[in-house]
Amino acid sequence: MKYIADITVMPMKALLDPQGKAVTGSMKNLGLSEIENIRIGKHITLEIEASNKDIASSKIDEACKKLLCNQIMEFYEFTLRES
Amino acid sequence: MKYIADITVMPMKALLDPQGKAVTGSMKNLGLSEIENIRIGKHITLEIEASNKDIASSKIDEACKKLLCNQIMEFYEFTLRES
Repeated sequence: MKYIADITVMPMKALLDPQGKAVTGSMKNLGLSEIENIRIGKHITLEIEASNKDIASSKIDEACKKLLCNQIMEFYEFTLRES
Repeated sequence: MKYIADITVMPMKALLDPQGKAVTGSMKNLGLSEIENIRIGKHITLEIEASNKDIASSKIDEACKKLLCNQIMEFYEFTLRES
């Protein structure tokens, strides 16, 4: 069965996010000073072939830990649905 | 009132995503060949101060169009919740 995963990888809350900070500054220049505390991470979608949802979920966990997420600086979350 | 927005910016489905394609290749090298069709975009969280949800929503729409999303190559979606 084929599943689609939506993965979000974000910088850890305890760490500074310089990219987000720069964009927060740009919002003020655009007249959107109500917007603050921007944090920027990655959103990843992928398709996975697996016999059930548990197997798909553990494979995606493995992919996140080995490749998609640097767990020293980032954390990840994902949702899984049938395609 | 303060709202938190979760914004997802992804490359358009009709366009190639070279970064996602490279990562799909790396999955095979890691023994995760069940995973395919990876697409990589941005996930942005921010806080916004607005008197109601409609105003917050239109401000975020403006921020996406003016700064966060290149609408020639990307599309965006967002959800809004009270903080």
